[in-house]
Amino acid sequence: MNKAKLNNKSHNIMVAQKKIAGVLGATGSVGQRFILLLAEHPSFELRVLGASPRSAGKKYIDAVNWKQTDLLPTMAEDIIVTECKSEFFKDCDIVFSGLDADYAGAIEKEFVEAGLAVVSNAKNYRREEDVPLLVPIVNPEHLDIVSNKLEKAKSEGKSKPGFIVCISNCSTAGLVAPLKPLVEKFGPIDALTTTTLQAISGAGFSPGVPGIDILDNIIPYIGGEEDKMEWETKKILGSIAEDKTHIKLLTPEEIKVSAQCNRVAVSDGHTECISLRFKNRPAPSVDAVKQCLRDYVCDAFKLGCHSAPKQTIHVLEQNDRPQPRLDRNRDAGYGVSVGRIREDPVLDFKMVVLSHNTIIGAAGAGVLIAEILLARNMI
Amino acid sequence: MNKAKLNNKSHNIMVAQKKIAGVLGATGSVGQRFILLLAEHPSFELRVLGASPRSAGKKYIDAVNWKQTDLLPTMAEDIIVTECKSEFFKDCDIVFSGLDADYAGAIEKEFVEAGLAVVSNAKNYRREEDVPLLVPIVNPEHLDIVSNKLEKAKSEGKSKPGFIVCISNCSTAGLVAPLKPLVEKFGPIDALTTTTLQAISGAGFSPGVPGIDILDNIIPYIGGEEDKMEWETKKILGSIAEDKTHIKLLTPEEIKVSAQCNRVAVSDGHTECISLRFKNRPAPSVDAVKQCLRDYVCDAFKLGCHSAPKQTIHVLEQNDRPQPRLDRNRDAGYGVSVGRIREDPVLDFKMVVLSHNTIIGAAGAGVLIAEILLARNMI
Amino acid sequence: MNKAKLNNKSHNIMVAQKKIAGVLGATGSVGQRFILLLAEHPSFELRVLGASPRSAGKKYIDAVNWKQTDLLPTMAEDIIVTECKSEFFKDCDIVFSGLDADYAGAIEKEFVEAGLAVVSNAKNYRREEDVPLLVPIVNPEHLDIVSNKLEKAKSEGKSKPGFIVCISNCSTAGLVAPLKPLVEKFGPIDALTTTTLQAISGAGFSPGVPGIDILDNIIPYIGGEEDKMEWETKKILGSIAEDKTHIKLLTPEEIKVSAQCNRVAVSDGHTECISLRFKNRPAPSVDAVKQCLRDYVCDAFKLGCHSAPKQTIHVLEQNDRPQPRLDRNRDAGYGVSVGRIREDPVLDFKMVVLSHNTIIGAAGAGVLIAEILLARNMI
Amino acid sequence: MNKAKLNNKSHNIMVAQKKIAGVLGATGSVGQRFILLLAEHPSFELRVLGASPRSAGKKYIDAVNWKQTDLLPTMAEDIIVTECKSEFFKDCDIVFSGLDADYAGAIEKEFVEAGLAVVSNAKNYRREEDVPLLVPIVNPEHLDIVSNKLEKAKSEGKSKPGFIVCISNCSTAGLVAPLKPLVEKFGPIDALTTTTLQAISGAGFSPGVPGIDILDNIIPYIGGEEDKMEWETKKILGSIAEDKTHIKLLTPEEIKVSAQCNRVAVSDGHTECISLRFKNRPAPSVDAVKQCLRDYVCDAFKLGCHSAPKQTIHVLEQNDRPQPRLDRNRDAGYGVSVGRIREDPVLDFKMVVLSHNTIIGAAGAGVLIAEILLARNMI
Repeated sequence: MNKAKLNNKSHNIMVAQKKIAGVLGATGSVGQRFILLLAEHPSFELRVLGASPRSAGKKYIDAVNWKQTDLLPTMAEDIIVTECKSEFFKDCDIVFSGLDADYAGAIEKEFVEAGLAVVSNAKNYRREEDVPLLVPIVNPEHLDIVSNKLEKAKSEGKSKPGFIVCISNCSTAGLVAPLKPLVEKFGPIDALTTTTLQAISGAGFSPGVPGIDILDNIIPYIGGEEDKMEWETKKILGSIAEDKTHIKLLTPEEIKVSAQCNRVAVSDGHTECISLRFKNRPAPSVDAVKQCLRDYVCDAFKLGCHSAPKQTIHVLEQNDRPQPRLDRNRDAGYGVSVGRIREDPVLDFKMVVLSHNTIIGAAGAGVLIAEILLARNMI
Repeated sequence: MNKAKLNNKSHNIMVAQKKIAGVLGATGSVGQRFILLLAEHPSFELRVLGASPRSAGKKYIDAVNWKQTDLLPTMAEDIIVTECKSEFFKDCDIVFSGLDADYAGAIEKEFVEAGLAVVSNAKNYRREEDVPLLVPIVNPEHLDIVSNKLEKAKSEGKSKPGFIVCISNCSTAGLVAPLKPLVEKFGPIDALTTTTLQAISGAGFSPGVPGIDILDNIIPYIGGEEDKMEWETKKILGSIAEDKTHIKLLTPEEIKVSAQCNRVAVSDGHTECISLRFKNRPAPSVDAVKQCLRDYVCDAFKLGCHSAPKQTIHVLEQNDRPQPRLDRNRDAGYGVSVGRIREDPVLDFKMVVLSHNTIIGAAGAGVLIAEILLARNMI
Repeated sequence: MNKAKLNNKSHNIMVAQKKIAGVLGATGSVGQRFILLLAEHPSFELRVLGASPRSAGKKYIDAVNWKQTDLLPTMAEDIIVTECKSEFFKDCDIVFSGLDADYAGAIEKEFVEAGLAVVSNAKNYRREEDVPLLVPIVNPEHLDIVSNKLEKAKSEGKSKPGFIVCISNCSTAGLVAPLKPLVEKFGPIDALTTTTLQAISGAGFSPGVPGIDILDNIIPYIGGEEDKMEWETKKILGSIAEDKTHIKLLTPEEIKVSAQCNRVAVSDGHTECISLRFKNRPAPSVDAVKQCLRDYVCDAFKLGCHSAPKQTIHVLEQNDRPQPRLDRNRDAGYGVSVGRIREDPVLDFKMVVLSHNTIIGAAGAGVLIAEILLARNMI
Repeated sequence: MNKAKLNNKSHNIMVAQKKIAGVLGATGSVGQRFILLLAEHPSFELRVLGASPRSAGKKYIDAVNWKQTDLLPTMAEDIIVTECKSEFFKDCDIVFSGLDADYAGAIEKEFVEAGLAVVSNAKNYRREEDVPLLVPIVNPEHLDIVSNKLEKAKSEGKSKPGFIVCISNCSTAGLVAPLKPLVEKFGPIDALTTTTLQAISGAGFSPGVPGIDILDNIIPYIGGEEDKMEWETKKILGSIAEDKTHIKLLTPEEIKVSAQCNRVAVSDGHTECISLRFKNRPAPSVDAVKQCLRDYVCDAFKLGCHSAPKQTIHVLEQNDRPQPRLDRNRDAGYGVSVGRIREDPVLDFKMVVLSHNTIIGAAGAGVLIAEILLARNMI
């Protein structure tokens, strides 16, 4: 919490520049996280909270069943919840969506058509080829598709178009974080396997994972998750088409991805046991892999984004790390921890990756995406 | 518990034939499990309990800190604990060792030299080439090395030699169970990866895994475990040398094995996410793999062993199974459950395997090994 | 599991005498437990399974989301689920109800009016003064109200009337078990406090307690539970009115009861920290209290009921017992464990009581009640 | 974290005034917490870390098995660990002791004799009548015994004597926090019962509570804890003798206290279900009790102590609060939460109290005590 960085003068300037933010699905698990992260944000002023018609008209404190370990921010308590219609969000520079997939499709479409900028945690538009699917510490350059669209509209004298940027699936975020610098340095990855041990907060809480299912137990299945991880990885590591209108996915020939997903009795923090093989021979050394990960500085940090991790990837040397309870909060949950990097008898390397599923894997990613949009003058 | 199978007559015969059994390390985690399994066993009579000098001379009930969810069997309560010296076990037909590795080496050696038959859960002699390393539902034929030795001594007019049979590592047992029928039917496996989610009972309880380390947490490391899994798999799937004096391990060229081991908040039951590729092309179909596993009947069952699972491998079709809490007790913990069998984009197949780490992975395996020894007239 | 007790001859006789049983709410948490307990019961033959219209018409195995740690009994798999109407249960000698309170009121009423004998786990009729509220190891004599009604109808030449017997709340069962013998021996209790640590299985599983609420957490509240405990204790320890038509509750002047209820991360087994003060002075000694509890033999056992605990109350002497994981299964969950009996600086005594909430606190109690009804020729 | 409060000027002044601090038992559970709390403390400069001879001579980062969820502070990493001898701490204005009771007795005595000021978490000197036993949000006035001693020495021209202040047992802290304002407003408490549900972090971690003992389980016993709670409450609520040389305990006639202590699967935060009866009749209303607790402002806050909670007692109105996961961090763990305040059929009132066992119940209390000592010019 580096709130003390700014002196009074710059603070006042910041206040003057604050962008108006709204949250869709504000009473849900992801929505609550957005509110926590935005409540005292230096660049955003949280002003509009949208939820179901049942909640609309109530004070937020009366509408929400607050379940975060941090207390409900005072500033949000008395905001009157609105319905999720663009008319109530028309003053917003940025809208964060924590809507369930059942609702996100129609609502987010209406918001974009109304000219709003939406950063969404829902899965509905992730596979649209002209929608960036972003892990903000990994592929912010995919936002070029949006900036291209904005510039084109501007040059044509049109009003600023609405757009949507999708946050990746939570378990995908942890997977691709170490891949990005490795691919940049050592060339393409031929094959990639991951077995996940995922936290229950990723399932939300209405009802989420039943206690009786997770106490003294593991659930070796999360609906749709393995397909998401395998597909999203190919988009996030893919490249922007030459005409800057869409993303070209990696083909199965370019990368083979296999995921096995498990739910475990952990509150926050997804652990992934990853193996990978590079296309190029010989493969780099373990030390070279470690150094590459340590040296990686994400663009969001270079852009000076408030939430960007100082150390994007923490390479841990102790045998028994990373552990969710001990390492999930590195860099306030925006940093990813990688441990046990070693040679793999089947592929080239294996390693354990830990990422905070509700920060870099969900709401936190959304906020950092918005910071990048702001730094790039896209909002 | 099929104790009712026998009528009074056969029961009396059985009693007459009961073999005398002893337990080394009787107060420890594995020792307690041996006692539970032997207390009412139709073929073994538990008579000698060995533990540390500190416990020797006490009644078992006073020496032990009983931690099993089943109550301490009455028959064991008043047995006076002895030291772990062969002289006290000389009447035993079979000795089960639950000793810690720190003590097992010297003590088990002394027992074998004294002519005793030892089934050990310790790791000390697993890598001796003339010691069978057994998962009793997988490779009981490796006992031929011992029977060969016994026959040879007999033909030479020597007294019956002592011998040792080692129980495999707990996580290895679950891994190799489905491999055996697959290899028999579809030929050798080229590559094999497993990521384990292991129960804390596998770590014993003095002190075992600290509560603060496992509550809301995962430990992505178990000392020595990955190496054990990778090495033991090569021995268990290996073959008996022509002269029947030792086991020939599979070479790294014959099979590549890669393990990643994690400790999770589960009391009993190791879950493993496995991927494998066969050497032969084309690979079999998913249905053929399932059928092969379903059809497998382990030799111990064919031999009529009391504890042998009626169904060696349970192929589960529900998406979210196997789960430790729901499936670990199939066939009283001697059966292995396999679910989510599906194609793997990187290797050929992936699946989830669940085995009961203290039954088929430890003490239970020891008892079933002894039943096989008995059925084969080796004790 | 003493299923082997009977020889073939008596077994045949038993089969001939088996009473037909039905289960209402068969797909729910309590219903599943009823099925487990009835599947191989020597006196009851499970024949009818009732559930919601959504499930009616399906095979049970297809209708249920089975969540028990014991496997679904084969005999129940193919039973076609019916709706919860008495016409489908008309051949039943006894009907066990695991219905939710939302449905139990109307359905159970219809069943009783149709002349059926119902043992219900629902709370709806517990407070009717002519309905026995039973903990079968505590107050089976309250069934006299029902037998009186049956005899009256018989003497009047009327057809056998339907009736209902209610199972107590799960946490009440553990509380009153040790109180009964103490009151019988030492006279009335003046004041009683209990703080409970209740298992999550008590909340059922649709959805029951959310995982995120119970992992690394306690919920110091269970809706309605404290009032139930305080009220039900007064009924269960109350006496039958002289005319045998209803139960007279203890008055607040006769006993003061105070409960504080908590939900904790335990799968099965309610722990209660109890304090109590007798009305009579001087209070008995700690040793006398222990002896009284040890000596208690419940009437159900004297009647020879199949499920009755051999030892009703287990008095544990180790400081750190009872523990749910180690002690909940004593006497197959029908026995209650009491430990740490000691003097209390505020009231007279304090102690820790553990009872299995789904056995003696719910479905198991229902089955034992039916066994008592059978032994008393009431069904 | 209000580190931003100070401008540069006052910051420099503070630095100039910083008191030198040392920590005994620095590698242990409590020691690690002291280091976390002192690392960036505005008034203390952590300079000396004492541990066992085995650790002495090593850098702290190499000596410690860091197990906190917050990262090891950089400033502590390279401090060379010393043995626990006063000669190494002679420059310390204040020494915090997290020593085990096995070592604390002799070491702390030597430190006091060497003229050092010691704030200890160990139990060894808690029952000395001239040693204040402090819950800093409750009875800081008991420090008068020490200030009296210091003034006396000064007036006699002697050098400043060493002294010790003891931190209360962790579960006692939560218990007495709400009692203090109640007693001040409504007069003495006649009887008090508490049943605790205590977190495992209170047991330290070498080895602390074994995982197998706490997963799906409760341990209804913590050695010595109930006696500590019953005794310490009488001292903390006791008064200073007229000659200001010792504390007069409340007598059993003045207050009856009964505790039942349980260990549960919670990482941090002790929950207590409390009942109490006042001596004065009529008892106050529930609303009056709530208001009294809400209005309480601890002296440490009035003194301006850095760590003192802004709201000492949080009265929560939701039925299902306080919960450890949601409420333990109120006021950074220095605030105590009280919920479910209601009438009690046996005593007068019952309520649920939650306090952070490692903050206000251990290391955090020590730091706040030191802040009070500083504010009172006693160090």
